[in-house]
Amino acid sequence: MRDVGIVGVGHTKFGRWNGSYLDMASTAAVEALHDAGINLAAGEAGIDQLFLASMGAGQVNRISGAASALVDTLNLRPAMAETVENGPASGASAVKLAYMAIASGLANTVLVVGAEQMRVLSGWESTDFVATMLHPEAEYPYGMTLPAAAGMFTRLHMEKYGTSEKDLAIVAVKNHENAMHNPVAHIHLVPDLHAITDDEDANVINPYVAEPLRVYATCPMSDGAAALVLTALDTEREFAHKPVRIAGVGQATDTHVVAERPDPLDLFAVRESAKRAYEMAGMGPKDIDVAELHDAFQILEIAESEEVGFFPRGEGNKAAREGKTRVDGEMPINTSGGLKAKGHPVGATGVSQVVEIVRQLRGEATGRQVKDARTGLTTNFGGFGNNVVSIILTTKEKG
Amino acid sequence: MRDVGIVGVGHTKFGRWNGSYLDMASTAAVEALHDAGINLAAGEAGIDQLFLASMGAGQVNRISGAASALVDTLNLRPAMAETVENGPASGASAVKLAYMAIASGLANTVLVVGAEQMRVLSGWESTDFVATMLHPEAEYPYGMTLPAAAGMFTRLHMEKYGTSEKDLAIVAVKNHENAMHNPVAHIHLVPDLHAITDDEDANVINPYVAEPLRVYATCPMSDGAAALVLTALDTEREFAHKPVRIAGVGQATDTHVVAERPDPLDLFAVRESAKRAYEMAGMGPKDIDVAELHDAFQILEIAESEEVGFFPRGEGNKAAREGKTRVDGEMPINTSGGLKAKGHPVGATGVSQVVEIVRQLRGEATGRQVKDARTGLTTNFGGFGNNVVSIILTTKEKG
Repeated sequence: MRDVGIVGVGHTKFGRWNGSYLDMASTAAVEALHDAGINLAAGEAGIDQLFLASMGAGQVNRISGAASALVDTLNLRPAMAETVENGPASGASAVKLAYMAIASGLANTVLVVGAEQMRVLSGWESTDFVATMLHPEAEYPYGMTLPAAAGMFTRLHMEKYGTSEKDLAIVAVKNHENAMHNPVAHIHLVPDLHAITDDEDANVINPYVAEPLRVYATCPMSDGAAALVLTALDTEREFAHKPVRIAGVGQATDTHVVAERPDPLDLFAVRESAKRAYEMAGMGPKDIDVAELHDAFQILEIAESEEVGFFPRGEGNKAAREGKTRVDGEMPINTSGGLKAKGHPVGATGVSQVVEIVRQLRGEATGRQVKDARTGLTTNFGGFGNNVVSIILTTKEKG
Repeated sequence: MRDVGIVGVGHTKFGRWNGSYLDMASTAAVEALHDAGINLAAGEAGIDQLFLASMGAGQVNRISGAASALVDTLNLRPAMAETVENGPASGASAVKLAYMAIASGLANTVLVVGAEQMRVLSGWESTDFVATMLHPEAEYPYGMTLPAAAGMFTRLHMEKYGTSEKDLAIVAVKNHENAMHNPVAHIHLVPDLHAITDDEDANVINPYVAEPLRVYATCPMSDGAAALVLTALDTEREFAHKPVRIAGVGQATDTHVVAERPDPLDLFAVRESAKRAYEMAGMGPKDIDVAELHDAFQILEIAESEEVGFFPRGEGNKAAREGKTRVDGEMPINTSGGLKAKGHPVGATGVSQVVEIVRQLRGEATGRQVKDARTGLTTNFGGFGNNVVSIILTTKEKG
């Protein structure tokens, strides 16, 4: 199997995008191609395949074949192109498919773009759009939403492991602090831990979204795009950056209906996807220097930090409290600001996570750089954990 | 690169599906798994990856992560899963991705399902939905539709190559005749050639949709699903059928905006996709015994039959007139009934085309069987020719 590496990264400012969907997607793509040192003059880019990751290109923006339109916009014809949808894990799915395309030999160089423009929707429409990732017959029609699912999950976690609202706020504040060093983050603002938890006005500035989840325990709705250039490591083509190797790719599905899981706190697909990625990489949790986990809700950063093996079950809350997951901690998580503060344009998130790890491994994460980072992990969480993709990236030689 | 073959096929009756989207998709999937001799008892199916092809799962049916829901329905957890969208070429794109998944070594056995439920929309809503595959900034907002694009294309073809309305009707009648032998076809009815062309009532029973295209020169709106089981040919696993080998997969994009093509009659992506598939297979047009071409409009069957190399440019109309493309002709096309009569549930079509070729190569196409068929071609046409995928299947040994 051919080895695959990443040689270019691009990322729009997450938040609100005032141009068109294609404009947003192409902006991140052009940055990634430029970063890789690729000449975009017609016919010279040498991109064999484009994968566009999006949950809502069709449903929200009413664009079909958006990947083909993007190929055309970027002068990449006659490159192959597909749009990939796997809910909020669409981005990492596209990276996986790029890996497959190259490893299969059908492509040498692949462009991956994750792009989501959600803020054309109202707040309620956004919540409804996101809810379409719940089971179409057993959950969605009954009015279930993602905050509702996460609220119930949080309540159970609190009861079983003693996680507190303050623990969630500690994770949030850390991620907001990290985002202050990430120019492309959606939110540049650091809430005061006391003010959003213990202060008498906490209910005013940090109200409940779905009790026990408050505003500062959930991610915002964001527009944004991120892009990657992937290439086979056995080709002689030269790029502007030394490749960051994809050492492992793991994916697993779980019951679509959360209530059908024997233990709703058991995020099987997170654990299994990480296990598969570790096995493929010949690595374990101790090899990871930096990780981007899918904190659409702050409880998920805590729970995932356990499932991927960084901390024992039930001790992710304590690790966060002790500062272990800070940039200068023993296991830095979400140095980008995470979904909480960097933002969560759903289909773009998995690609954005990989962009952050590449920046960390290249030593480009100014202000939030993890010292001596050689290997990183991303975990991209689809649905309420029904389809999860984990990716391990490294600058270490294979061996 | 590992070789890949097809060991199972499934297909719902195209037309109107009165159940749910997932029910329709799983019905075709169960049939394909059963056809392959796979035990669907939980945990025993051995499916590593599912690709669901759909243009409208999100946009029409408002289901995100439908591939994961289908994995769960079919008891295939923790199989990997993604939904693939490439307009009406989504189906062949999913087959391509399955090929990549297996050839890369990340999967051994893959389930591909194409499923589209369009008839929940009104006629006008369907036309609008289909139109979202046109360029989102340069075509769709100006009211362009697919019948309009095809009408203009047909007019040019008539002027340049002398194609007549009667030629289109000849193609339509042939496909309707073929569909009479295909139990899963949408329309079981053979129009009278004279009545729909020369008769004084032709304008009543066969009115213009977008002049010079009449009703019998365009496909219907259909619900439907088709499914395939693909496997690596180097594994020792046994299936109920001998594999039909995928010898070639070719894909190419063209300008998204039809008006930007130097010659709008030049279907570059059709030609290039077929060329790539022939090259990969080490074959040429003369090796093809039977083909499924994308006759969303009858003019496309004629034009594609030229671009894939069956007939010289401008002579596809003559070939159809002379009966060369009939089941007993020298180059049988659309023995399934084609999109015209079998129906065109957009995301399912590319998968359905492959199902028909597998049935032909197995000798199972009762009533429409092409004699001694060993090798077949499918061409699945996305947008108005902006992204085309061609696949070559064969029972011949690799050599």
